[in-house]
Amino acid sequence: MEGPNVDQDTDHIFLKQSVEEAYEGVDTKDGYPFGAVIVRDGEVVVSCHNMVRKNKDPTAHAEMTAIRMACEKLDTEKLSDCEIYASCEPCPMCFAAIQITGIKRLVYGARAEALTPMGYGNFISDALRGTTSFEKANLEIKQAEGDDAIMAEQALLSWPN
Amino acid sequence: MEGPNVDQDTDHIFLKQSVEEAYEGVDTKDGYPFGAVIVRDGEVVVSCHNMVRKNKDPTAHAEMTAIRMACEKLDTEKLSDCEIYASCEPCPMCFAAIQITGIKRLVYGARAEALTPMGYGNFISDALRGTTSFEKANLEIKQAEGDDAIMAEQALLSWPN
Repeated sequence: MEGPNVDQDTDHIFLKQSVEEAYEGVDTKDGYPFGAVIVRDGEVVVSCHNMVRKNKDPTAHAEMTAIRMACEKLDTEKLSDCEIYASCEPCPMCFAAIQITGIKRLVYGARAEALTPMGYGNFISDALRGTTSFEKANLEIKQAEGDDAIMAEQALLSWPN
Repeated sequence: MEGPNVDQDTDHIFLKQSVEEAYEGVDTKDGYPFGAVIVRDGEVVVSCHNMVRKNKDPTAHAEMTAIRMACEKLDTEKLSDCEIYASCEPCPMCFAAIQITGIKRLVYGARAEALTPMGYGNFISDALRGTTSFEKANLEIKQAEGDDAIMAEQALLSWPN
């Protein structure tokens, strides 16, 4: 009999799978302890973990990898009918990718602040919770002015139909 | 003779190249009108454009593609000695990837607001300029509580040395 805790139980199952992926990613030396599972209609589409170390690709976070694999598998650029389970609160890169692909629901486990001992807490939580990325970013940023700005903005008008 | 506008001229040259990439990406139907060039010590490391359409990969933005290619080419996960020239203000995903890889300087052309007609302006500028991504995100977000949160946070402790 389906009870009121069905969604809760389902969430637990998929979240647990994402956490198991996090451990597996470290065991296999593929990457860091993060896992992600993308689910559609209650079925797992892809289940994966951080691949940064194996792929030598700093963008190969668990959620990014899951999104890229899911889009390839489903032959789509949009994941509007999908949910993503992440073992940890997504970083701004992954969170933006989640938004870009229109994923309808995010369930995450660890809070970003749990990454503070590893030196990552502020990067994630600041960006997600209201401190401007630009203000906090430790790099020089220059916006083009004048003709260069016009040149660059005109390129956008070539947006394909 | 080198004058006071050398940096300015150099910036113009590489920014122009990124804008030319933006056009080429549309001409070749590889993607949308965005280009990116990564430079180290005044030399181009990689020059590329948005590959979303060709690769059917919604994460294959120009900057993301450039970062992944540069890391592969230089056999590194960090680009601390590099600058990135982007034809348009980077979206939050790309901006975070720029931060993650430690790129030391960003020069961009078009303002994010120039994307408003295409429906993207707010997504980028809100995230970068202080409105919390979470508050604006059009998706349901659930953070695990209790044992699930503990389970997920414990996984982070497996961080490899």
